[in-house]
Amino acid sequence: MSSSTGRLFRVTTFGESHGGGIGVVVDGCPPRLELDAAMIQHDLDRRRPGQSRLTTQRDEADRVEILSGVFEGRTLGSPIALLVRNSDANPGAYEHLKDVYRPSHADYTTEAKYGIRNWQGGGRASARETIGRVAAGAIARQLLRAAAGIEVLGWVHQIGRVTAPVDSTSVTYDQVEAHPTRCPSPDHAQVMADAIEAARRDGDSLGGVVRTIARGVPPGLGAPVFDKLEADLAKAALSLPAAKGFEIGSGFAAAAMTGREHNDPFTPGPDSRPRTASNHSGGVQGGISNGDDIVIQVAFKPTATIASAQRTVDRRNNPVTLSARGRHDPCVLPRAVPMVEAQMLLVLADHWLRQQAVDVLGCEAQS
Amino acid sequence: MSSSTGRLFRVTTFGESHGGGIGVVVDGCPPRLELDAAMIQHDLDRRRPGQSRLTTQRDEADRVEILSGVFEGRTLGSPIALLVRNSDANPGAYEHLKDVYRPSHADYTTEAKYGIRNWQGGGRASARETIGRVAAGAIARQLLRAAAGIEVLGWVHQIGRVTAPVDSTSVTYDQVEAHPTRCPSPDHAQVMADAIEAARRDGDSLGGVVRTIARGVPPGLGAPVFDKLEADLAKAALSLPAAKGFEIGSGFAAAAMTGREHNDPFTPGPDSRPRTASNHSGGVQGGISNGDDIVIQVAFKPTATIASAQRTVDRRNNPVTLSARGRHDPCVLPRAVPMVEAQMLLVLADHWLRQQAVDVLGCEAQS
Amino acid sequence: MSSSTGRLFRVTTFGESHGGGIGVVVDGCPPRLELDAAMIQHDLDRRRPGQSRLTTQRDEADRVEILSGVFEGRTLGSPIALLVRNSDANPGAYEHLKDVYRPSHADYTTEAKYGIRNWQGGGRASARETIGRVAAGAIARQLLRAAAGIEVLGWVHQIGRVTAPVDSTSVTYDQVEAHPTRCPSPDHAQVMADAIEAARRDGDSLGGVVRTIARGVPPGLGAPVFDKLEADLAKAALSLPAAKGFEIGSGFAAAAMTGREHNDPFTPGPDSRPRTASNHSGGVQGGISNGDDIVIQVAFKPTATIASAQRTVDRRNNPVTLSARGRHDPCVLPRAVPMVEAQMLLVLADHWLRQQAVDVLGCEAQS
Amino acid sequence: MSSSTGRLFRVTTFGESHGGGIGVVVDGCPPRLELDAAMIQHDLDRRRPGQSRLTTQRDEADRVEILSGVFEGRTLGSPIALLVRNSDANPGAYEHLKDVYRPSHADYTTEAKYGIRNWQGGGRASARETIGRVAAGAIARQLLRAAAGIEVLGWVHQIGRVTAPVDSTSVTYDQVEAHPTRCPSPDHAQVMADAIEAARRDGDSLGGVVRTIARGVPPGLGAPVFDKLEADLAKAALSLPAAKGFEIGSGFAAAAMTGREHNDPFTPGPDSRPRTASNHSGGVQGGISNGDDIVIQVAFKPTATIASAQRTVDRRNNPVTLSARGRHDPCVLPRAVPMVEAQMLLVLADHWLRQQAVDVLGCEAQS
Repeated sequence: MSSSTGRLFRVTTFGESHGGGIGVVVDGCPPRLELDAAMIQHDLDRRRPGQSRLTTQRDEADRVEILSGVFEGRTLGSPIALLVRNSDANPGAYEHLKDVYRPSHADYTTEAKYGIRNWQGGGRASARETIGRVAAGAIARQLLRAAAGIEVLGWVHQIGRVTAPVDSTSVTYDQVEAHPTRCPSPDHAQVMADAIEAARRDGDSLGGVVRTIARGVPPGLGAPVFDKLEADLAKAALSLPAAKGFEIGSGFAAAAMTGREHNDPFTPGPDSRPRTASNHSGGVQGGISNGDDIVIQVAFKPTATIASAQRTVDRRNNPVTLSARGRHDPCVLPRAVPMVEAQMLLVLADHWLRQQAVDVLGCEAQS
Repeated sequence: MSSSTGRLFRVTTFGESHGGGIGVVVDGCPPRLELDAAMIQHDLDRRRPGQSRLTTQRDEADRVEILSGVFEGRTLGSPIALLVRNSDANPGAYEHLKDVYRPSHADYTTEAKYGIRNWQGGGRASARETIGRVAAGAIARQLLRAAAGIEVLGWVHQIGRVTAPVDSTSVTYDQVEAHPTRCPSPDHAQVMADAIEAARRDGDSLGGVVRTIARGVPPGLGAPVFDKLEADLAKAALSLPAAKGFEIGSGFAAAAMTGREHNDPFTPGPDSRPRTASNHSGGVQGGISNGDDIVIQVAFKPTATIASAQRTVDRRNNPVTLSARGRHDPCVLPRAVPMVEAQMLLVLADHWLRQQAVDVLGCEAQS
Repeated sequence: MSSSTGRLFRVTTFGESHGGGIGVVVDGCPPRLELDAAMIQHDLDRRRPGQSRLTTQRDEADRVEILSGVFEGRTLGSPIALLVRNSDANPGAYEHLKDVYRPSHADYTTEAKYGIRNWQGGGRASARETIGRVAAGAIARQLLRAAAGIEVLGWVHQIGRVTAPVDSTSVTYDQVEAHPTRCPSPDHAQVMADAIEAARRDGDSLGGVVRTIARGVPPGLGAPVFDKLEADLAKAALSLPAAKGFEIGSGFAAAAMTGREHNDPFTPGPDSRPRTASNHSGGVQGGISNGDDIVIQVAFKPTATIASAQRTVDRRNNPVTLSARGRHDPCVLPRAVPMVEAQMLLVLADHWLRQQAVDVLGCEAQS
Repeated sequence: MSSSTGRLFRVTTFGESHGGGIGVVVDGCPPRLELDAAMIQHDLDRRRPGQSRLTTQRDEADRVEILSGVFEGRTLGSPIALLVRNSDANPGAYEHLKDVYRPSHADYTTEAKYGIRNWQGGGRASARETIGRVAAGAIARQLLRAAAGIEVLGWVHQIGRVTAPVDSTSVTYDQVEAHPTRCPSPDHAQVMADAIEAARRDGDSLGGVVRTIARGVPPGLGAPVFDKLEADLAKAALSLPAAKGFEIGSGFAAAAMTGREHNDPFTPGPDSRPRTASNHSGGVQGGISNGDDIVIQVAFKPTATIASAQRTVDRRNNPVTLSARGRHDPCVLPRAVPMVEAQMLLVLADHWLRQQAVDVLGCEAQS
């Protein structure tokens, strides 16, 4: 079960970084949705390594094949299985890591859990696993767009000590994609890119924050208790490699605010439903969407793989010094944007479908 | 399903703030665990209103009854159902809220989702719903203590603009409980208490941060993908009323650190397993516990109910001015401590049980 | 999890035959459904002991209390918790069974599984546990009636060696309820009643078969693979105490038929959808309802509790002779009718809700 | 979710009869289990078409590829993905079925549910989907054998009007596999084979019954309420294409027995646990295994595809006459044996894993 998520829009990923390939099965996508491989490939291309000099040099085309669930350009309602073959794997490059636990990687914990580990790469902990999620997210995007008019957009808000002020309500996809950092503020983007280059030269790495927004979410998605919308978003975000923190709306800043400052006053909306004058709630109140933009932030730690020498231990508990070789991102943030989007899309698709089974008895009581 | 959580240690809560009562069913607790009502009542008493002048004046004893699943002081392996009757409900006090949406409450979103609302209180969105979680958490605490030697302890880290420096590795339960704020630093606790009183007098409210730690967690709990331990902890935390943010280990501070600063070097441990020289990971690497203390932080917004007049709308989308009456907490943080502990306990109990079904084939491969 | 069932119409039962009470939590019932305790009590009264001289003399009123989820006569969309207190428990009557395994009961297997057993009755294996299912089934009945026009009706088809020929398409609720056996053929009902009385006098017991039908089920409910409608019905049926077999449509008779005999020819229906000329399929084809009546049969073994002396062993593996005392049904079939109905109602409610999340994108492709 | 089953040994199948291929993801298989493709291929070869002249002439090698989850001959604990490419698909052969609903197939119900259908074959309703189940079952077989000493064996008990008396306690795999019918009684096997040949020549088809047994199951597997072992077995059985009935132990014959006849007396066993003198219970009492052989029977209807002309309707509700072309089995029973085995193996593997998370607190209470 640990490789599945979602109640009705059910996603199961499989595959290690080195092996036959990476894939995903999406069960529960409604039938008759227009879908083709190109729609999925588009998001995968935003995630793939080697897309710019800011990312890892591992160069894999990551071409997706639709194995099932689509017929004549439309979904069948049956499981949609997608497969991306591993092509640029280089197991020999990992031979020196066979008996060593890399600091702040999952090497040690994987062995503690399973008593076995595919040392030819990161296994399930590899960022390659997110291929399946981004591919599934692309299907969710198509569903939410077609069925509900919901759009999800993410961007880089912070890298290292550089934070970009961006107006969440107006930022566009083209602005985000205009720069390889995926920071839509051109000036800050360049400073971020320079910082990434400097870290790479220095054998070091950087962290950052991705902000993601969902527009067009109708009121009523979510649930009041365990499956609050922000709870599922938090889980989705923290399930990404290297994620360390999550905020919705005001986030940690809320801790220092007073109720008078924080409460979002309701005002009459044009379509006879209320609007809020501010959005500290981040689009969710009591676990349920209120129709505002949903705004989340996800913090990522700096990449654990660095070129500098580090202290660690081997599998026999002996101290050793490790110097990483091989290809890696000095900063995951640019590639994390489509990953966070995907995770948000999966949560929204699931909750949107769940709501279809809630609102089934007519609305007379609402008057 | 929205009222259930956990895969093997399965918790289902029920009940509204006004009605027959609040309860919980815990399915999957192993048999033969010592359990009695007093163990559960202990945690409920830390959660209940009216425990100090810092909390709401609603005074309910919240006495728990074990309906099933326990026989002669031990669990049977069957569902443990617990019931707490509502006794101090005062529906009349809510009559003026029947047609009004309180700002930053769940009134509007509940109607948007369900088309109906029990206006005699907060319904499922009421903090009273957490009675079931705290009661279930007390059972999880008993299980983790007896079966695995795991202890969970939370405290108030921040209220408003006051942050208390506390040494996570040494803080004790008695230190936390010594002051009604549940801040274990006496000096800071008093400043926090004064701030809460000031907010109450001012018709305002305060937010804050709870830090919670799990000690004695063995390496290997968690999962590498969707059900990462930190992901389930994040969901559990954000499912609490008023929670806005979650961090594990370094949290958002990680975004501004470099890999060299952030990586936790491994050193040989005394029992032939590695230890980390720092704990930016927060006890979890790649979604799986590494044996270190697990450290999380949860941000809470200021209480939405304030005595000051506020702009809002009614159910017919007309603007109205609302002045809250009735009893409420000017700051939920002191009572949030047992809630966050409970949520962490539920996640750990579930993952501990899940691991029993993973490590079943002997460990020869680990040598 | 073993005490929960259903994906969207989620039912969790709790309680042992001796203890605080028996209950159920129904999570996922749509909001705004008319519901009151009397609707639930009606089905519970058909299940309760002591309703006629054919059933056990244990006389419990089994009054249901709605603890949550209903407000002003309508469901809120939140969990509906129901509680029935145990009133006629007589633990002393079981003292002699404390260390003995009754043949073909769950005494031994319960201890094998849990290492502990509430010997003051049947615990979770008691037929009393089905109170929660029948109560939940009554809510499902109300939902299916109001939302979809689906009706479920069961009756006794066979007791011992007596089988009643009944026209499934025309039999009515009043015919079933006209006789305490719940066999709608008056002549056969009387023979069955006489056989039950004879078995009781002889210290013996009888088995039988319940047939149940669902009318008005729209085409399209179910699923093509693991969650075939007949698969979920089979699980639901075999989860009842004493159930030994399940059939849909032609059932085991299909094994001796040829394809020409068994296939149900399609003919044009009046509303531009096909009808079948026969119904060997039992209303389900490929796991999905076809709009015909769904017809199932469930076989029940004779009651394991008999007054005659029996060989068995005690907890120390010593041979002993056991003579049952206490109150029991010589034949469960009359009371099994509302139980099978309830299980079928729960499956249909769940699949009906699931279908609401499938058919969401318009039907243009169907033309 | 409809394409997934199991709680801890979690199986998700994908793929249509015509498309990229058929596959399965097994999540939750414990790590360090010896596994290679040959072990899986062995069971697939027993399922594949074209294995004898009794089965369909569609000739596909059905070679399985392990995509993930296995490293150096052992499971990693991560999802095991298996893929079998479709090679002998012949979509043109189905062109004449594009607008016609074949009687007692899933053509109509699939369109009723999804509003779309891959008419180039049976889609998800095709028996080809069971490739994934048999492959997953082979992994479960390996787990149960290695971890618990459990063996599952099925055989053909009845075809058409021919029933073979077979001693369940002594029948062997070699006896079953000695004849292409998979009936271990050579004389009856030959009569069955002749009947199948006769049906084929006559443009007709036959049904039958598979009996399957599990040996070496320890006491304690299963659950007392919804997830009774026989309930999950019933669901597993009825989820197979063409299954119409399920029995455990005495099955429908129990209905005509008395309690004195049916009860299984306990006698002292050699290892200080009780044995039963008969096995009407079929190895399960109160939903939990008692250590006896588990014995189930599954009834299959005659193949719906027959060469004879049949009445039906097309998608515009017009009456048409259909004569099947193409390749099909005149009797699915020989190939159904590995399918039923697989389904039983999946249920037992899941419940065996579940029990590892129940029996965790030591057994002092059992003395």
